[in-house]
Amino acid sequence: MTFNKENKGLRDVIADESKIGFIDSQKGILSYRGYTVQTLAKNSSFIETSHLLLYGKLPTQSELQAFDKKLRKNRDLPANVLKMTKLFPPKAHPMVSLQTIVAAMGAFSEDPAAAKPREILLDRCIELVAQFPTIIAACWRAKSKKSFIKPNPKLDHSSNFLAMLTGKVPDAETAKMFDVCLVLHAEHSFNASTFTGRVVASTLSSLHASITGAIGSLYGPLHGGANEKVLQMIAEIKNPADVESWVLGKFARKEKIMGMGHPIYQVKDPRSYILEEMLKQLSQKKHNSKDYETLKKIEEVTRREMEKRGKTDVWPNVDFFSGALYKLMDIPVELFTPLFAMARISGWAAHILEQLEDNRIYRPDCDYVGPSNLSYVDISQR
Amino acid sequence: MTFNKENKGLRDVIADESKIGFIDSQKGILSYRGYTVQTLAKNSSFIETSHLLLYGKLPTQSELQAFDKKLRKNRDLPANVLKMTKLFPPKAHPMVSLQTIVAAMGAFSEDPAAAKPREILLDRCIELVAQFPTIIAACWRAKSKKSFIKPNPKLDHSSNFLAMLTGKVPDAETAKMFDVCLVLHAEHSFNASTFTGRVVASTLSSLHASITGAIGSLYGPLHGGANEKVLQMIAEIKNPADVESWVLGKFARKEKIMGMGHPIYQVKDPRSYILEEMLKQLSQKKHNSKDYETLKKIEEVTRREMEKRGKTDVWPNVDFFSGALYKLMDIPVELFTPLFAMARISGWAAHILEQLEDNRIYRPDCDYVGPSNLSYVDISQR
Repeated sequence: MTFNKENKGLRDVIADESKIGFIDSQKGILSYRGYTVQTLAKNSSFIETSHLLLYGKLPTQSELQAFDKKLRKNRDLPANVLKMTKLFPPKAHPMVSLQTIVAAMGAFSEDPAAAKPREILLDRCIELVAQFPTIIAACWRAKSKKSFIKPNPKLDHSSNFLAMLTGKVPDAETAKMFDVCLVLHAEHSFNASTFTGRVVASTLSSLHASITGAIGSLYGPLHGGANEKVLQMIAEIKNPADVESWVLGKFARKEKIMGMGHPIYQVKDPRSYILEEMLKQLSQKKHNSKDYETLKKIEEVTRREMEKRGKTDVWPNVDFFSGALYKLMDIPVELFTPLFAMARISGWAAHILEQLEDNRIYRPDCDYVGPSNLSYVDISQR
Repeated sequence: MTFNKENKGLRDVIADESKIGFIDSQKGILSYRGYTVQTLAKNSSFIETSHLLLYGKLPTQSELQAFDKKLRKNRDLPANVLKMTKLFPPKAHPMVSLQTIVAAMGAFSEDPAAAKPREILLDRCIELVAQFPTIIAACWRAKSKKSFIKPNPKLDHSSNFLAMLTGKVPDAETAKMFDVCLVLHAEHSFNASTFTGRVVASTLSSLHASITGAIGSLYGPLHGGANEKVLQMIAEIKNPADVESWVLGKFARKEKIMGMGHPIYQVKDPRSYILEEMLKQLSQKKHNSKDYETLKKIEEVTRREMEKRGKTDVWPNVDFFSGALYKLMDIPVELFTPLFAMARISGWAAHILEQLEDNRIYRPDCDYVGPSNLSYVDISQR
């Protein structure tokens, strides 16, 4: 067997079956457990969507109440973990502190080897969904030399996070928009971080260790982190009227336009429509439409120039509008990838549960192309 | 495309090319960069083998001196990281504390996005090879309520580790045997932990985040941890004379004999010959041959019974003798998997460097077999 370079990165290789996320790259469909993201963004909440992902079905009223209650009860962190959040140097990226703290939580949780009863494992998954906002807010406030704000069990998942982060309870509209962002980022099939989580779990390692691995992949600039770069990009543009020449300059220098194009979608990412609409609304409400107008102009000019070059499949992806939206919510840029993790934890956990239902350890082959039969030469003779 | 279940766990799927480790499962050959493990165990040291893995060649005298000097200089941990080692609960598994601390070190190191210049990345790899022993010893002593022992730059890599762990500088023979164990565990091609490290690195995440992911996979009982189980198994056997009936009982109950058989090797694992010989020697020296004799008897009876059933390819693997050897070195059982990590860090780092030389993000497909086109039913109607 030799290696087919077209399959590098396991491109077009089917790694397993799955019942969680579905993507139609031609039609621009993304669905979770059979429900399109549009449907969920319109009707559901992040908590309900998390139930859907973890249990495979939308909850009844009493199931949702019990689930929400369990989440609210499990937001706290052990005292020693809170101490750890204060030991990072100021330069620490919030994804590094998140990865560290989630790994550490494995020592405090009764973390079964992943093969143990599913109900215990499910409880641990729910705890992580509940704890991620607290970890992210606690590390951010420690980094900012601000005191920790305890989770408030009277607030819903998204409002509580924003309150723990900023010290202010957000208005209902902002909290709802933020919650929709979480819904949109909760699941995306076998992406690199989810795949990482499944690979780690396939060794029957712990849930915490598996999620810790997934966080590491999401930290990579080729995976999470692209919306951070979109914001850095538009910060270069002082006025939407400058976009035309800015984009043409990018094309001339053969530079990438961040947030445009997706390795999978060949049409506009279904999530970007919803994010665009929310950005438009919040820009109007906040009387600050500069970023929105700049992004729309970038989309228009980039698509026009791409089409001239025969490329009609370059569209805004999920990262194109989300950064500007978070910015209008006064969320610091460095937290964009942790927010992605705070949403994706539900998808990761669902995939790890699925992996363990019918497990085999991931152990691919490689094609060895190095030297053979070398003789050891004494160091004095080298 | 549909999923071929025979390929589950990416079995028989070639994920990439590699020039690092080579395995011939029929002939029982394992080589690193073209040198067999027998050759390296006999002639080399863990430090020299690490140079071979990281740089692709055996060092000259001056290169080895410079490499060793750099390693000795980089054994210390930041003060805040040492504080973290003291914040784990007593029950914390040493693999959990290792994973946590390596993740945290990413915040203290000038950890480049993995795409940055190779020399900087190589320096970070060398630092991790140097720091792993300190992290493992520091966490273990904190767990055991003993004070931290600073690394001693006058001691070689293996002697220093054992001294930091136990408080006693080991005799030269024990240190050498321990060092050979590290050589034997340093690399094994695309196993689950190495593959995990490559997947995380393929997102251009940081070196620390990638190694953190690899540690998570090694923690899994299907990957690392098997030698721990071999020891638990032989603890059940009071006397080597009881092995015959004990093995027959295992066969009657269709239970697995830990440490026998390997998913890849169809002959005796080349590493197990060397470990067996060292165990024999140390057992004689310590006048304690019970474990050695028990294991040899288990090998004999298990092979005889397997052959009766037509299975001739079940042989001792790398985990069969190593646990008993570590036990004779007074190393606590819970540290066996961290020791594996302390050796494999060199292989992991070499693979991450190789991944980044010609990178493409890992993003396999999956075959979606879940429901489609579901309509959202209001919660009151469910």
